[in-house]
Amino acid sequence: MTHAAPTAAVLIIGDEILSGRTPDTNLNTIARFLGALGIDLLEARTVGDRPSQIVEALNALRAGHDYVFTTGGIGPTHDDITADCVAEAFGVGIAERADALAILERRYGDELNEARRRMARIPDGGVMIANPVTDAPGFQIGNVFVMAGVPKIMTGMLEDVAPRLRTGAVVHQRTLRVTGVGEGAIAAPLAEAAKADRDLSFGSYPFGAGSDGELGTNLVVRGRDAAKVEAAVQALAETLGAAGIATALQT
Amino acid sequence: MTHAAPTAAVLIIGDEILSGRTPDTNLNTIARFLGALGIDLLEARTVGDRPSQIVEALNALRAGHDYVFTTGGIGPTHDDITADCVAEAFGVGIAERADALAILERRYGDELNEARRRMARIPDGGVMIANPVTDAPGFQIGNVFVMAGVPKIMTGMLEDVAPRLRTGAVVHQRTLRVTGVGEGAIAAPLAEAAKADRDLSFGSYPFGAGSDGELGTNLVVRGRDAAKVEAAVQALAETLGAAGIATALQT
Repeated sequence: MTHAAPTAAVLIIGDEILSGRTPDTNLNTIARFLGALGIDLLEARTVGDRPSQIVEALNALRAGHDYVFTTGGIGPTHDDITADCVAEAFGVGIAERADALAILERRYGDELNEARRRMARIPDGGVMIANPVTDAPGFQIGNVFVMAGVPKIMTGMLEDVAPRLRTGAVVHQRTLRVTGVGEGAIAAPLAEAAKADRDLSFGSYPFGAGSDGELGTNLVVRGRDAAKVEAAVQALAETLGAAGIATALQT
Repeated sequence: MTHAAPTAAVLIIGDEILSGRTPDTNLNTIARFLGALGIDLLEARTVGDRPSQIVEALNALRAGHDYVFTTGGIGPTHDDITADCVAEAFGVGIAERADALAILERRYGDELNEARRRMARIPDGGVMIANPVTDAPGFQIGNVFVMAGVPKIMTGMLEDVAPRLRTGAVVHQRTLRVTGVGEGAIAAPLAEAAKADRDLSFGSYPFGAGSDGELGTNLVVRGRDAAKVEAAVQALAETLGAAGIATALQT
């Protein structure tokens, strides 16, 4: 099959998905993110926390697609084995990285224990993916993007992944800065906007942990149709404004 | 890997899942259904409406597992190609079946048009799966169960599938809710518990990563021996309690 647009696959990693304990939502988030970028998502696989299965699936997917996105298994616990499996799949070493460790030291200070240090281990040649929520980074190696399983963190990581991707069409993007309220206050209108137009991708990236105390979130709307993006972001601004919530369109 | 319990895979079929237009919920429904039956769901794949991809995935999965469950692509429209692909994968013919047609005639009467008649086509050797919602049947062939994509219909079809499955021992599960600390704070005792009993599975599923949520993690202990699961979860609660960490056993 020939594709003008780049192709992609998703690899969801985690026993909790296959046991039914946790319903996956990341596939849908990534699917809409890629759709807005003009990248064709052609398949997805879900595997458990079994090294051979992860390695085999990853190697099959990265050979068959321009991009592979993985979710899950990069936390601090013993069942977080994704980084090791990715290193094995690529046939490279894996070690604690100074840049990743510095981030964790800043985040955890004296509470940076051995378990948390595991999150600074990145396969040789990997490039970090920023985590705007809990700091511990994901990483990119070759055409593979390794992200967290927690949906809010995974979604935040996509923001750092987007500029690295060759897109299949010009993608338009507008950011609406919402201030004075937390993310929960705008979740409902955001979800409605997302439902109203499936050709657009809607992201929400909260801020406000800083010392200045300002609370808010950046809403990012992306899509191939500039007019639709503009209309959606204006509609969001109006809806939030009518609810007494302050917004500012970013240029 | 050897398994005392039967193993299973899920194949989700449909462009609408990969485009992000429709979030899949069937995987979670099937996962919980199989968990309750003591059948190990080991992997899932999602593919689009492309015959070669469907055939290839189905043949890989049915060769590797005791059971395969497919969802999607058995409706009346042109993009409903699952039955034909299943026939191709098994190397058998496919034709309109009298028993299936009788069901559709009863359901639709004069409104049984050509498009709807397509739903009476079943691969040779297939056995119908009852559809308690809209009547048009799914089918079983060999170790493959072909079901609808609409969640309510798919769930209804599982009722007719259950008695056909060889079940494993039921898996017992207990959840210990840990609050006030992040996942990294309990990683070490969790890893020790996992090492202490290899017959049990230990998972850690953090929550509250966002700006406004309560921080903590759900520790899930699973195993086929209920007493062992109970003992392990109690021991974890004691260890964490001794370290001043708040836990609550979920019922």
